[in-house]
Amino acid sequence: MAKKKKLIGVDLGGTTIKFAILTLDGDVQQKWSVPTNILDEGSHIIPDIVQSINHHLDLYKMSANDFAGIGMGTPGTVDLANGTVTAAYNLNWKTTQKAKEQIEAGTHMKFALDNDANVAALGERWKGAGNNEPDVDFITLGTGVGGGIIASGRLQHGVNGAGGEVGHVTVQPGGYLCTCGKHGCLETYASATGVVHLAHDFAEEYSGNSKLKKMVDNGDEITSKIVFDLAKQGDFLANEVTNKVGQYLGLAVANMANVLNPSYVVIGGGVSAAGQFLLDLVDKTFQQEAFSTVRASTTLKLAKLGNDAGVIGASSLALRFVDDADLSEAAKVANVAATVAE
Amino acid sequence: MAKKKKLIGVDLGGTTIKFAILTLDGDVQQKWSVPTNILDEGSHIIPDIVQSINHHLDLYKMSANDFAGIGMGTPGTVDLANGTVTAAYNLNWKTTQKAKEQIEAGTHMKFALDNDANVAALGERWKGAGNNEPDVDFITLGTGVGGGIIASGRLQHGVNGAGGEVGHVTVQPGGYLCTCGKHGCLETYASATGVVHLAHDFAEEYSGNSKLKKMVDNGDEITSKIVFDLAKQGDFLANEVTNKVGQYLGLAVANMANVLNPSYVVIGGGVSAAGQFLLDLVDKTFQQEAFSTVRASTTLKLAKLGNDAGVIGASSLALRFVDDADLSEAAKVANVAATVAE
Repeated sequence: MAKKKKLIGVDLGGTTIKFAILTLDGDVQQKWSVPTNILDEGSHIIPDIVQSINHHLDLYKMSANDFAGIGMGTPGTVDLANGTVTAAYNLNWKTTQKAKEQIEAGTHMKFALDNDANVAALGERWKGAGNNEPDVDFITLGTGVGGGIIASGRLQHGVNGAGGEVGHVTVQPGGYLCTCGKHGCLETYASATGVVHLAHDFAEEYSGNSKLKKMVDNGDEITSKIVFDLAKQGDFLANEVTNKVGQYLGLAVANMANVLNPSYVVIGGGVSAAGQFLLDLVDKTFQQEAFSTVRASTTLKLAKLGNDAGVIGASSLALRFVDDADLSEAAKVANVAATVAE
Repeated sequence: MAKKKKLIGVDLGGTTIKFAILTLDGDVQQKWSVPTNILDEGSHIIPDIVQSINHHLDLYKMSANDFAGIGMGTPGTVDLANGTVTAAYNLNWKTTQKAKEQIEAGTHMKFALDNDANVAALGERWKGAGNNEPDVDFITLGTGVGGGIIASGRLQHGVNGAGGEVGHVTVQPGGYLCTCGKHGCLETYASATGVVHLAHDFAEEYSGNSKLKKMVDNGDEITSKIVFDLAKQGDFLANEVTNKVGQYLGLAVANMANVLNPSYVVIGGGVSAAGQFLLDLVDKTFQQEAFSTVRASTTLKLAKLGNDAGVIGASSLALRFVDDADLSEAAKVANVAATVAE
């Protein structure tokens, strides 16, 4: 029997590029990361990826032949068929980037890519909180709010790649202005910056006793973590903020579940470090706003894989380059999800 | 070459049961209907269906052998694997009904069923406004509000069959009480009864000149059609009502599209008889609340098939009983949508 090939997963972010070498069952065997160099219109990024992969293959005494291929998650708008990326502003990419062409040429491996939130959804669904179920929705609460939807066993892109854009679901018509130009998007309340925005607004209207209020009035730097930590300690104003965040998240999650009825809605990203405290707040509104059948069958969960969700999900994009006979049942299921329906 | 088989589509409703004989391309060749007899806990319904099909086959000098099978849309909760129906209250069905077993035994044909709104979605997507595209969402505005979602080419049921329950998306937290027990469901505002509810509420608070106001004060029976007709004629109060309906529908449609990014959201059902006037109202809010990529790629459309959507979509459930070689490309696409992913 020929030796089973490995996968490479790449999670391209605005600050770091994470890499991993994984088995065909999505188990991480090696991982490393390099800083993202966005200078010169991000023109160093793809060469850096190629160089870092080749360098680590040398280190581990491996060659392109040991791998089925590379999968990558990236910010921006992805052209799945052509393997190109546009409009990835946090990478400073102003023109269309031929990611697939350049990475395949530089590494001599096959390459597939998808949107970063979609890839994290694939990872959490395959190896994390999603239990590899056919219907799993994922929300990531970071600087922004992203999402990915696996429905009937397949990642949903929609007609123009905007499938899973739960960050831009309107939860408050006429509410906060979003970077997307709309008002009242979930992202404006439930992202790390949204939580801080709410804290500043609520502090302005509040005159009672609160450590959060004092910090804001002092001009101290407020973070989403500070707000949640103070809320857990019983700070009144901080709880007003986190209750509001929970309400908006619960409404968005319930309405997504009312339409898709997934087994799980998995919540990840930096803000989800608030853990069970956050989940309980979201679930309170979810229980109010979800249809009875959905309440009975859809469960909210915290993400399990942390930063590894991206590289694991990205690696599942490369399962398409493996013979089905070499894949376990679980990996076959992951491969179907990661592959665009014909 | 063997003669191509036909399909039978059945659309089971609380008032009438609609039947059609269709080609494998979903073209209706014969149709008829019988009243739904909900007496005696609805125990006559399935025997009536069997009898009506057998009677019409005699009329047309056809036999079970001429058909690939029967597909049916039904109210209630459907067990797809077992072909049973529970909780169809408008049929007076209080216990689980073995629809598949009884209809197959009575007609000697293969049988498949799904939820009525899902089946109408399949019909509009195959032969109506959906152009047989992979990503089409459908909303039906009737006595209630139902929906069906085709995503990546497949009808979405979710984990417990509540996929597409857009009628129970919350559009107004704490709003009107819904029959489902929640508050502020889309159905409470945008169904035929919801429109009338809004008209009564708005009339109570309005003291200006309005024909709708006069009718309400007179105790005249108000219907959704009357409200929309008066709105089109420029009645101020009626426009307040229809604007509100458009806002809630536009919000629900935009948020569904923000998550699924379909090619089309198709709006059907009795209330949609208000036509382009309604569609323009919905689109106004949709343009405000949809994410830019979604605005650029998702289009709202009126349903095209009217009452035939149900029997056409139902018949597509029977395509699974046909050899692929006998199906046109369009029928193959319809068959994939109607078949539950393994």
